[in-house]
Amino acid sequence: MKPNFSLRLRIFNLNCWGIPYLSKHRGDRVKRLGDFLNMESFDLALLEEVWSEQDFQYLRQKLLPTYPAAHYFRSGVIGSGLCVFSKHPIQEFTQHVYTLNGYPYMIHHGDWFCGKAVGLLVLHLSGLVLNAYVTHLHAEYNRQKDIYLAHRVAQAWELAQFIQCVSLGLTGEVGWGHGLRGGQGPTSRWAQLVRRELLPHQPGSPSHTSKKADVVLLCGDLNLHPKDLGCRLLKEWTGLHDAYLETRDFKGSEEGCTMVPENCYVNQRELQPFPFGIRIDYVLYKAVSGFYISCKTLRTTTGRDPHSGTPLSDHEALMATLCVRHSPPQHTPSPTHGPAERSRLISVLKEAWAELDLGMAQARWWATFAGYVIGLGLLLLALLCALAAGGGVREVAIMLWTPSVGLLLGAGAVYLFHVQEAKGLSRARAELQHMLGRAREAHDLDPESQAALFLGQQEGDRSEEQ
Amino acid sequence: MKPNFSLRLRIFNLNCWGIPYLSKHRGDRVKRLGDFLNMESFDLALLEEVWSEQDFQYLRQKLLPTYPAAHYFRSGVIGSGLCVFSKHPIQEFTQHVYTLNGYPYMIHHGDWFCGKAVGLLVLHLSGLVLNAYVTHLHAEYNRQKDIYLAHRVAQAWELAQFIQCVSLGLTGEVGWGHGLRGGQGPTSRWAQLVRRELLPHQPGSPSHTSKKADVVLLCGDLNLHPKDLGCRLLKEWTGLHDAYLETRDFKGSEEGCTMVPENCYVNQRELQPFPFGIRIDYVLYKAVSGFYISCKTLRTTTGRDPHSGTPLSDHEALMATLCVRHSPPQHTPSPTHGPAERSRLISVLKEAWAELDLGMAQARWWATFAGYVIGLGLLLLALLCALAAGGGVREVAIMLWTPSVGLLLGAGAVYLFHVQEAKGLSRARAELQHMLGRAREAHDLDPESQAALFLGQQEGDRSEEQ
Repeated sequence: MKPNFSLRLRIFNLNCWGIPYLSKHRGDRVKRLGDFLNMESFDLALLEEVWSEQDFQYLRQKLLPTYPAAHYFRSGVIGSGLCVFSKHPIQEFTQHVYTLNGYPYMIHHGDWFCGKAVGLLVLHLSGLVLNAYVTHLHAEYNRQKDIYLAHRVAQAWELAQFIQCVSLGLTGEVGWGHGLRGGQGPTSRWAQLVRRELLPHQPGSPSHTSKKADVVLLCGDLNLHPKDLGCRLLKEWTGLHDAYLETRDFKGSEEGCTMVPENCYVNQRELQPFPFGIRIDYVLYKAVSGFYISCKTLRTTTGRDPHSGTPLSDHEALMATLCVRHSPPQHTPSPTHGPAERSRLISVLKEAWAELDLGMAQARWWATFAGYVIGLGLLLLALLCALAAGGGVREVAIMLWTPSVGLLLGAGAVYLFHVQEAKGLSRARAELQHMLGRAREAHDLDPESQAALFLGQQEGDRSEEQ
Repeated sequence: MKPNFSLRLRIFNLNCWGIPYLSKHRGDRVKRLGDFLNMESFDLALLEEVWSEQDFQYLRQKLLPTYPAAHYFRSGVIGSGLCVFSKHPIQEFTQHVYTLNGYPYMIHHGDWFCGKAVGLLVLHLSGLVLNAYVTHLHAEYNRQKDIYLAHRVAQAWELAQFIQCVSLGLTGEVGWGHGLRGGQGPTSRWAQLVRRELLPHQPGSPSHTSKKADVVLLCGDLNLHPKDLGCRLLKEWTGLHDAYLETRDFKGSEEGCTMVPENCYVNQRELQPFPFGIRIDYVLYKAVSGFYISCKTLRTTTGRDPHSGTPLSDHEALMATLCVRHSPPQHTPSPTHGPAERSRLISVLKEAWAELDLGMAQARWWATFAGYVIGLGLLLLALLCALAAGGGVREVAIMLWTPSVGLLLGAGAVYLFHVQEAKGLSRARAELQHMLGRAREAHDLDPESQAALFLGQQEGDRSEEQ
């Protein structure tokens, strides 16, 4: 690879709103999407909510000449809805299905049946290894009283961990280690400690133990507003940059929103508190040492299709042009990451821990409640059997069998589900707690951090008030 | 790190058979296990089937002075049963729960409720990064008619993929790339092609894009005999070595068996076809470029506890002493991996693909069958309602409501489950198919491979006949 190597990547992302029988004008929209993708010839098109595999197969056929590689990520009962079309060969793919994803008895919400996941593609582009992730997190149905908050935070954590493990290295150089990749030498005892611990056998090569992908790209519908806990956790932990915030050339909807009131498919009532709409779809990226990535342009549709016709979906499409340049490690432009950033990470880890803890308490409450209902159901069934045997109200007793057996089975299922939910939340909480402990230890060793921690907390409080 | 660096690792692995209320002498065995682990002071003790978190907490307290670090992997309804005790600090941990893990209606087998998983610990030992995995795959209840075979193969594949993704690199250098890490230069067009594709920007550093862990260790109860498809798939794909086959100093049960007829807790009838017992628990390892690992000694218990008392479990414990040495990449001793090895990999991938395909057909058959039962149940319910309204056999009709509603709900659950199962198998099959395609492409480019493929197939046929 030449030192002045430069690669331009054109990326397309859209939540396609492709629910069979329910989404309006689905066939027409899928057709127009295919035409548009063929015309634009992106490097990579990442799609969410392609719930019907027929739609994927239709697109695959249609896009074959322009995008010879494609993959549909299968999971759960309905599927993950994720798929991808690529102009370049796909070297490998894999996926991770989120442990927690709503409740099976919330059938009208349906998320549980989807098996929401994160899909990963590995591409080799002019000698560069690109790990492209596509995901769709649990929907938010009620922002004021969000019963899925803990699940979404757990999903954001699992997503961040999956990206870290697979692309960025699981060996300590995570989140609060940003500074190590920059040009600054170790300026504190903490940094020296971490550097010694992380890079033991090749001190001159900062990425030695963690290098996997050269560039990491994450696209998808996170169902998280930019300042939501899950979004902050994901960004702080992985160090991914937000294309909308980074680019100097943005054209599209106000404030980069990806669900806007101008879109005729959007439920206007739900968007009432947000006059410009909401930003919940993202293009996030990061280059690992040795490379530099920037977002040259970012475009969104604005409630219509790119040719001002009916929109392609109820979400807006994101179209980003990324530029990857080769850059020797010592010259990698990297913002200074000091104790303030570390304390912001600690604060977001703490916040996530607290949210999962709350979720765990609720899961345990439901399991206990279901346990009592099981006891009650058993009592009721015994009583009905006695009544049926004794005569008198025999017919009524027999009629009540069905609901009481149903109650018993239902409560049993609810019990098992919430026990499992509590285990899943407990697992994520334990991982967070471990990381928090390590981050704090490192932080405490650094005297500069003390003041910054205080400042970081103040900042955190302020953003909570907003 | 000094060039003559050498690290000795003492590893303990045991499936503890710790089912509350069901496993015999559980309390006493856990106590004796704790005493033994304290006395021996291993570097790492990896345990399976610690189903009760109380047992883990008891061991944690007891082992705290010798093993300051511990982790219990929570998942599913019951838990994964996996836990680990370490003399050295744990840097990070994470886990992956297998997508497919038996059937919820096979309550007497119970695997589905466990949420079987693979747990990962990252340790830093004298500047060496060790990724230690512990796992427990789905049990085999009937070797002649194994309804869980496809699930176990899918689990073995997911396990292999998880290890590859996290520790060994997901960027093409998998399985059939062994030879690249050895001292041989590219001897064929294929090897040159792969080398160029894999190591584009740093041709002098073979492990550049894949380096994560220096040493990978996998312990656990795989529920797979050494020649079983899942075991071959795992070994061929990850390149992990089997301590029992590698060590020159083995002492313990005949043929390294980990379930032996001498053990008083073992079901003798199940072991009847195997006079020496079966080998289903493993210590597998691998060093990544720059390091060399060997198994100095391997010991197993022999149906009694290490002091010849009652056994610690129905499985035998494995105790390995591993030695890791520093070794520059160009001197890494690596067996020659030629076309024969590649064609063996292709053959095992094909075999696994076929097994998953068979599993998928069965899952779809069950989903279709459940669909018919749902239709039948609905008809029955309508008929019963009509009879109840019409009088005559009213009481009987009402009495039959409960079973028919139960039938309907049950069939609905079975339907959803098998649709999800088919999706999970289809996902693994797609991954295998992709890898098979790439392996074949690479293989076809290499003229040496043609004869070897033929030989490999013959070998495969022979092992099938056995």
